[in-house]
Amino acid sequence: MLIDTGSRVLVETPTYLGALQAFAPMEPDVHGVVSDEEGVDMADLTAKAGGARFLYVLPNFQNPTGRTMSEARRAALSARARELGLPIVEDNPYGDLWFDTPPPPPLTARNPEGCVYLGSFSKILAPGLRLGFMVAPSALYPKLLQAKQAADLHSPSFNQRMVWQVMQGGFLARHVPTIRARYKAQRDAMLSALAHEMQGLDVSWNRPQGGMFLWARLPAGIDAVAFLDKAVAKGVAYVPGLPFFAEGGDTRSLRLSFVTPSTDEIRTGVAALAAAIRQELGNP
Amino acid sequence: MLIDTGSRVLVETPTYLGALQAFAPMEPDVHGVVSDEEGVDMADLTAKAGGARFLYVLPNFQNPTGRTMSEARRAALSARARELGLPIVEDNPYGDLWFDTPPPPPLTARNPEGCVYLGSFSKILAPGLRLGFMVAPSALYPKLLQAKQAADLHSPSFNQRMVWQVMQGGFLARHVPTIRARYKAQRDAMLSALAHEMQGLDVSWNRPQGGMFLWARLPAGIDAVAFLDKAVAKGVAYVPGLPFFAEGGDTRSLRLSFVTPSTDEIRTGVAALAAAIRQELGNP
Repeated sequence: MLIDTGSRVLVETPTYLGALQAFAPMEPDVHGVVSDEEGVDMADLTAKAGGARFLYVLPNFQNPTGRTMSEARRAALSARARELGLPIVEDNPYGDLWFDTPPPPPLTARNPEGCVYLGSFSKILAPGLRLGFMVAPSALYPKLLQAKQAADLHSPSFNQRMVWQVMQGGFLARHVPTIRARYKAQRDAMLSALAHEMQGLDVSWNRPQGGMFLWARLPAGIDAVAFLDKAVAKGVAYVPGLPFFAEGGDTRSLRLSFVTPSTDEIRTGVAALAAAIRQELGNP
Repeated sequence: MLIDTGSRVLVETPTYLGALQAFAPMEPDVHGVVSDEEGVDMADLTAKAGGARFLYVLPNFQNPTGRTMSEARRAALSARARELGLPIVEDNPYGDLWFDTPPPPPLTARNPEGCVYLGSFSKILAPGLRLGFMVAPSALYPKLLQAKQAADLHSPSFNQRMVWQVMQGGFLARHVPTIRARYKAQRDAMLSALAHEMQGLDVSWNRPQGGMFLWARLPAGIDAVAFLDKAVAKGVAYVPGLPFFAEGGDTRSLRLSFVTPSTDEIRTGVAALAAAIRQELGNP
């Protein structure tokens, strides 16, 4: 609804691959804003905002990096976007999956008229229901309704009623803390395995405060796309980072998910990855 | 996937409004092929086919007209489309809802490599599940998969498994005949009520052999869009025909659905429509 052919769209660096794929059929001109561990850089955002239709951001436990936008960065981004007249599309499928403390309030809460907020039941209830929700300025609703009807008439009413029933019973309030505890233990298992297995290797990674993913970097000279088959041959898979960049990208980067495998499998998988790296470096 | 901005697309006259809405975000140049009670006219199709990406058709109990393409027309259309190198998108949500005899075999069965076939569980099981299916030439699958992933990743796996279970149990084979019998009785009730209530009025209608809709025409001088509010004031609603035309259109045309109301409600509704028409004509 916000994109015509050639429209300028801004995203984080890197950003969610699925968003780039969702935008692609409308043929936008997508630019990555320089980003650090807290999200987009204000100076680069300001330089690139001219004529942009919107900025797409994932402030909480971002896919693919697992990083979270700080309170200070959110305040700065919200103020700057308002000054620039730049709409923000805020995607928040992972925000409930915090490990120790909840993330800062969403950007949309700071400027509801300047933001479109996307929520999801996929990560807290079941991805197979394909249900999410949107909070948008009321002026957008007639066109949103038209676009939704054109796409699929409506989301399955059966699934909507089922989720409504589940929410009436308080299931989510009981269930989500069990996910948090499980994923936190699995993140810890992965961090611990990485610290142990990658000793002496030029491999770096971050420490997400929630969500499902950890962002890592292979030693110099190893391309994560080309290396994937060799890792799979050792019994471990990852998602190469390159497709998550709107422009260029770090060929050594990769995304590690810690939520589906058990802690034992995480230890086995990280050891397999380390073995594949050592073999690749001729250092078994 | 088949439309770029400005791409030429051919449809029946009239055609399914939801298809026009689904194509619209890609900004095609849509042309209506002259159509009669059996579907598209071969001469007009041939004249308009140059450069067209595809022809979209609903051969069985079409929405909105309820008409069905004859065996002869299907054979001619299939042969002509093949000669022209014109792909056909064949939409068949209503084909199982025949009243006396099944419709002729689909266009896709005659030339699978030149057609994309769309099926649905909405009309034979439950619209609230939002599940359908597609049969397409294998060369299209990589791009179809990419487009589906960009749109929604996948249709709800929960719903897919549920429908699969229902089909294992033979429910559809038992259930669909009950729908056919019910809709046939309701169509008959509507035809009978129209013959009775519209006596002396310049109102015409067709006699669909299946499906959910009947196509009618108001007396000269009554615009179906402008007249809708007056009909609703009398207690009956219909869908004006005009939005179903890709170009121009018959302002007197309208679609009557006979599937949701009971036979009693159908009689009441048709009587209310006749009363509204008489009042509009100053002939109470």
